Amino acid sequence: MSDNIMIMKGNIIFTPTMGQFKVLENSYIVVKKKQVIGTYGELPSEYNGLPITDYGDHLIVPGFVDLHSHAPQFVNRGLGLDLELLPWLKKYTFFAEARFEDVSYAEEVYKQVVLELWQQGTTRVVLFGTIHTEATMKLMELLAQAGLGGCVGKVNMDRNSPEFLIETTEQSIDDTETFIKNTLDKYERVKPIITPRFVPSCTPELMMGLARLAKKYQVPIQSHLSENLDEIALVKKLHPECCNYASVYQKFELFGQQPTIMAHCVHSDELEQKLMEENSIYVAHCPYSNNNLSSGIAPIRSMINQGIAVGLGSDVSAGHEVSIAKVMAMAVQVSKLKWLDTKKEDRFLTIPEAFYLATKGGGSFFGKVGSFEEGYEFDALIIAERSLADSNQRSVEERLNRFIYIGDERDIVARYVAGEKIDRPEF
Amino acid sequence: MSDNIMIMKGNIIFTPTMGQFKVLENSYIVVKKKQVIGTYGELPSEYNGLPITDYGDHLIVPGFVDLHSHAPQFVNRGLGLDLELLPWLKKYTFFAEARFEDVSYAEEVYKQVVLELWQQGTTRVVLFGTIHTEATMKLMELLAQAGLGGCVGKVNMDRNSPEFLIETTEQSIDDTETFIKNTLDKYERVKPIITPRFVPSCTPELMMGLARLAKKYQVPIQSHLSENLDEIALVKKLHPECCNYASVYQKFELFGQQPTIMAHCVHSDELEQKLMEENSIYVAHCPYSNNNLSSGIAPIRSMINQGIAVGLGSDVSAGHEVSIAKVMAMAVQVSKLKWLDTKKEDRFLTIPEAFYLATKGGGSFFGKVGSFEEGYEFDALIIAERSLADSNQRSVEERLNRFIYIGDERDIVARYVAGEKIDRPEF
Repeated sequence: MSDNIMIMKGNIIFTPTMGQFKVLENSYIVVKKKQVIGTYGELPSEYNGLPITDYGDHLIVPGFVDLHSHAPQFVNRGLGLDLELLPWLKKYTFFAEARFEDVSYAEEVYKQVVLELWQQGTTRVVLFGTIHTEATMKLMELLAQAGLGGCVGKVNMDRNSPEFLIETTEQSIDDTETFIKNTLDKYERVKPIITPRFVPSCTPELMMGLARLAKKYQVPIQSHLSENLDEIALVKKLHPECCNYASVYQKFELFGQQPTIMAHCVHSDELEQKLMEENSIYVAHCPYSNNNLSSGIAPIRSMINQGIAVGLGSDVSAGHEVSIAKVMAMAVQVSKLKWLDTKKEDRFLTIPEAFYLATKGGGSFFGKVGSFEEGYEFDALIIAERSLADSNQRSVEERLNRFIYIGDERDIVARYVAGEKIDRPEF
Repeated sequence: MSDNIMIMKGNIIFTPTMGQFKVLENSYIVVKKKQVIGTYGELPSEYNGLPITDYGDHLIVPGFVDLHSHAPQFVNRGLGLDLELLPWLKKYTFFAEARFEDVSYAEEVYKQVVLELWQQGTTRVVLFGTIHTEATMKLMELLAQAGLGGCVGKVNMDRNSPEFLIETTEQSIDDTETFIKNTLDKYERVKPIITPRFVPSCTPELMMGLARLAKKYQVPIQSHLSENLDEIALVKKLHPECCNYASVYQKFELFGQQPTIMAHCVHSDELEQKLMEENSIYVAHCPYSNNNLSSGIAPIRSMINQGIAVGLGSDVSAGHEVSIAKVMAMAVQVSKLKWLDTKKEDRFLTIPEAFYLATKGGGSFFGKVGSFEEGYEFDALIIAERSLADSNQRSVEERLNRFIYIGDERDIVARYVAGEKIDRPEF
């Protein structure tokens, strides 16, 4: 019966429910193949005699889920952050992405991206590539090689885009179909996702074509929604027939017909939020990005209250932080400013709430991911505390708080994805 | 003539004026004793033949100035951040500070504090200690031993404080005088500063006594101002005779009679700002802290427009980040939210503006500190770019931006304070 059983010991902490840490000190977690069997204060007798990986005083937490980031923009982190969305795209981002026509450049950058995700403890990630099919497939290959899980999209852009980064409608659809066919069953944990950049850069014909592909191949969808007021005005101008931004995606069947992530939703009002809830849309909350591009503070409490699924996103390179731990801290921080803005009506996010968003919240997009409950895929980080510790006694929860706020990748001593220990990628 | 001359070569970048980087690529900086003689694209012939420290492609920037932090709270970083100011003080901070009655505990923690400041590139710092004279003198000794510069205050508290962290008025004044006498001329770059915690914890008698000491010994002053609405309401209740919070300090001559730093000033209105400007008050802007304790966003643009001197502060442990580079990034980020809040009236801080605040802005509190202009004390950081660099060509300014946003202490390869190279403290 020892076959495929893995037992780990340490200070286990996770969030089976939003806002509440479950803590098991000096306890056991039993994993069979890729799934959690259970967590136990005392090891059940049936497992006696099996080898135990003892992590001592270290913390064992679920791996972090990043629901929204742009792989080709990693090289631009920390650059060009004095602009808003549309000029920032034109001045920095489109140029950076155009270089990914060159697959060997793409490979060089994407190795850094995957290494950085691995370092920061991101075990599942949803990424935008570029319009370039080959480079985007390379990214998937590298992610799979590293053992990480995720969805990756070849980006679609056939209007309002610079001539060096635009496709014809037909080419865009054809390439996307090729991309899907080539990658749909290629890797166990890395899958394709339909990725219209955003409404301004996709014609109705393209959006309809992508919706057909999503349905035909049962592939999820990701895009951007209501990030910036100028962007929203542009969408309104392009689609005066739609009552709001979300309705455009809805009209073209890219809004929940397959599982769908929408990044940002900073300016989504009650009506738009209702549409999101009705269509089971996932929101990728990207507070670093929303600060850097002066987009604003997304109404996350309101969305949670509406029953909308929320996860966290780094949104590199509009967001400069890859670490989802740091994104949690920022989500809490901006929620406090939102709390003040709403005259203390929209309660701020607590740390266990943000932790939930970063693990089980976003993880549910991948199925049973982001928790240590029975049947969940075992994604985990083992966290030591390098130089953080002090001579005061701290609880497991306090130690996790401290890691979130002031820890970094040097504190993560091991990573697991779907039951598999993932070592530093050897690129 | 080579006596006491030091020549360094590298990519020099600093902000002689607010908001404008001065960049000298592959250039020279000549330092005599502790002061900068000049920066040069070509080395003047008079220095020919003297040894040059060549930092190659590295950046040479002014050292960072932290105008406000609490040394005893370093062990609490990342803890207890789900509360506002007054309950946070009661539940976490006062207990942490009470331990500093024990000088050996203080020494252990303060060694970590000084090491962390050194690591993060903070070359000048203004610190709160605790009410304990001996522990606070130990902190000064350790700072001086490490070669850092700064002002350190023994904290005063004689009302509205827990019984385990309160003094009598007389004792508080006597201890402060002892503290000043013992430290005023003891170290070249580490000096005492008068430190009433804030109005709620200091009686009028104590404030008057401290003002007398400030005048008698010509010692600067630091405290907190208008951080939180409940705090402001409490001050109003304690001092109904004063029209605002600042007026209380003004009334008791702790508001610019000697050089004065006031931390936060989140809720300072036009009238209070006017009083600050008239009294040449320095504002320590602490955006991490103001987010974490839900204090709000300080009106920094408005203060700058009024001609008020502003520097940056980490405000550990209400702020969890020691790195002033990260504080710069956060100052920029929250200023963008303020920009939106003010309907784009209060322009957001640009990166060269935040850099100015973190160097020459705060540095001016110490005299000629924070720039590489002639006559400035040579405080500098040498910044390499560990793993940050990519294969794209980046300008010196872009590389500095990248360090600010995504670099960390591992990128700082050397530190200088007042012309002296400061190695890792050997505690």
